[in-house]
Amino acid sequence: MSIYLRNKYRKLKPYTPGEQPKEWEYVKLNTNESPFPFEEGDRLGLNRYSDHRCTLLREKIANLYGVLPENVMCGNGSDEILYLAFNAFFSKVAFPDVTYGFYKVFADSLGIRKKIIALNEEYRIDVSDYIGLDCGIAISNPNAQTGIALSVSEIEEIVKGNPGNVVIVDEAYVDFGAESAVKLVSEYDNLLVVMTFSKSRSLAGARLGFAIGNSELIDDLNRLRYSMNPYNVSSMAQELGVRAIENNSRYMKNAREIIETREYVCVMLDAMGYRHLPSSANFLLIGRDDTPGEKIYTGLKEKGILVRYFGEPRLKDFVRVTIGSRKQMHAFLDKLEELR
Amino acid sequence: MSIYLRNKYRKLKPYTPGEQPKEWEYVKLNTNESPFPFEEGDRLGLNRYSDHRCTLLREKIANLYGVLPENVMCGNGSDEILYLAFNAFFSKVAFPDVTYGFYKVFADSLGIRKKIIALNEEYRIDVSDYIGLDCGIAISNPNAQTGIALSVSEIEEIVKGNPGNVVIVDEAYVDFGAESAVKLVSEYDNLLVVMTFSKSRSLAGARLGFAIGNSELIDDLNRLRYSMNPYNVSSMAQELGVRAIENNSRYMKNAREIIETREYVCVMLDAMGYRHLPSSANFLLIGRDDTPGEKIYTGLKEKGILVRYFGEPRLKDFVRVTIGSRKQMHAFLDKLEELR
Repeated sequence: MSIYLRNKYRKLKPYTPGEQPKEWEYVKLNTNESPFPFEEGDRLGLNRYSDHRCTLLREKIANLYGVLPENVMCGNGSDEILYLAFNAFFSKVAFPDVTYGFYKVFADSLGIRKKIIALNEEYRIDVSDYIGLDCGIAISNPNAQTGIALSVSEIEEIVKGNPGNVVIVDEAYVDFGAESAVKLVSEYDNLLVVMTFSKSRSLAGARLGFAIGNSELIDDLNRLRYSMNPYNVSSMAQELGVRAIENNSRYMKNAREIIETREYVCVMLDAMGYRHLPSSANFLLIGRDDTPGEKIYTGLKEKGILVRYFGEPRLKDFVRVTIGSRKQMHAFLDKLEELR
Repeated sequence: MSIYLRNKYRKLKPYTPGEQPKEWEYVKLNTNESPFPFEEGDRLGLNRYSDHRCTLLREKIANLYGVLPENVMCGNGSDEILYLAFNAFFSKVAFPDVTYGFYKVFADSLGIRKKIIALNEEYRIDVSDYIGLDCGIAISNPNAQTGIALSVSEIEEIVKGNPGNVVIVDEAYVDFGAESAVKLVSEYDNLLVVMTFSKSRSLAGARLGFAIGNSELIDDLNRLRYSMNPYNVSSMAQELGVRAIENNSRYMKNAREIIETREYVCVMLDAMGYRHLPSSANFLLIGRDDTPGEKIYTGLKEKGILVRYFGEPRLKDFVRVTIGSRKQMHAFLDKLEELR
């Protein structure tokens, strides 16, 4: 148990799943599973519960990121992990006014007080705003919606500057040009890095995320996971995750291609007179002085291009455009050109 | 919104997922997915988020159970749905002293007060104990650990007897000999039936469950789901669930085979002098007057048969044995014989 786990959970007694030995060791009559295969030739043995420890997947992740399996927890998407982490560690949490919309939703649904800190005029996180806070911190890096990244040394300043509280660094988009804070995990017991297979690894539909942190933080997360949904990661997702890690170079190559496409789109946008923030993610926040974001959104939608518009005050002038394939971005740029 | 949703959630603003049109309608640049397939020939399009509405699966379930899709919500296993339902509807909850262990864990982790009602001496739920309670109710039917089922008219008495509170009927094991309370859903707005694909449908490893209830209760559950994890059911799980419903007769036939095997095992246990409760589930709670449950558990384990032992007071004399295949049950009975 870490010093950061909230008091109300320190005495929680989680659910104990039945033992899950290897199939061949026992006649397994302990967890009320069906003895019948789901279908003939079901390789995954789906009639049996999934491995609630995600043993093999955690080993693969740990190897890739240079940590131990005890530093890793897997979840049903990184959203689930963020929910568990907010619940485990925060009674109050600070995050930027423009960031992943779920931080506010998690805080509200969990009764966590919010300290919302405005990004500066350039839509950047000002590190000095995040030093010596009296609460937990959630930062997405690169930041959701803006795409702007902090350096690892800036992240370190924040982690070091809040020794009594957990800092969550949500690295959903890290593979598109930012540097991971995982290397700081061995040094700081209050840092939790959260990642996903949904973006660079092309597995949004598989629902798989993971957290890397000090083993005591991971234990705390598991305590809450075993009190909510111990079998949270399906056998299919675990298998796909293992395959994604084994073929990691493929996905990192894809990420480099996204980066190149993004830089190309930026050049074109400059030429067309569109503003854009300096993104290290697989999206761009773009706008045009004479056109509200909503008008760009609806104009593009009418032409068959779907982008994201956020009605909130500081994003009214923008739309968020995912960096797709070259072909998709050409279609996007063509239609954007027609809108002018 | 139902009258049953807890006050603290009535103003909650859930997360809004990006629009998810059919692939061919738009160039989709709105949810930061990867344009690259996970692997060549990925039929499921796993690079795209799963359908957070589970549209097709909910239609299939609704058809099978004679309700509308608006009466159905899907979850990452029924555990997730139970967690959401406890959270949405209960500030205090009543359940039996011997039942699914997660009810207590959910209540404790969510800060819900518990009213724990002892089963009678025959390990049965006494319906009169559950009339006019001042709190929510969670009943597993057939009851977890005992396997004993209430009739639908007994369930109706409880639902009717608690008009101001939600009654959750957890039907994880219903296909092994009990009758579903789904037929009551159109009549009672305070009944939530929860089911799973993990047992009769051989999909424990796929993590898939669903709830059937009044559409307002389902809306409330969705409000919480969209505040926690909107993409909670993977594309793989949705596909497998659809296939399971399409082949429903196969799984119902499997369930009948389990029932036959269970009855056979009961006859053998009687002959061998073992007590057992009258189960309508895919497990039996068995004991022997001269032998503590733990001793049966360890004795069987040494002989390669894994059953479940619960240390809690009223279950100390028993072990819980899943009904497996005929062959597995023969192995179990042989080893049990050796223990005498």
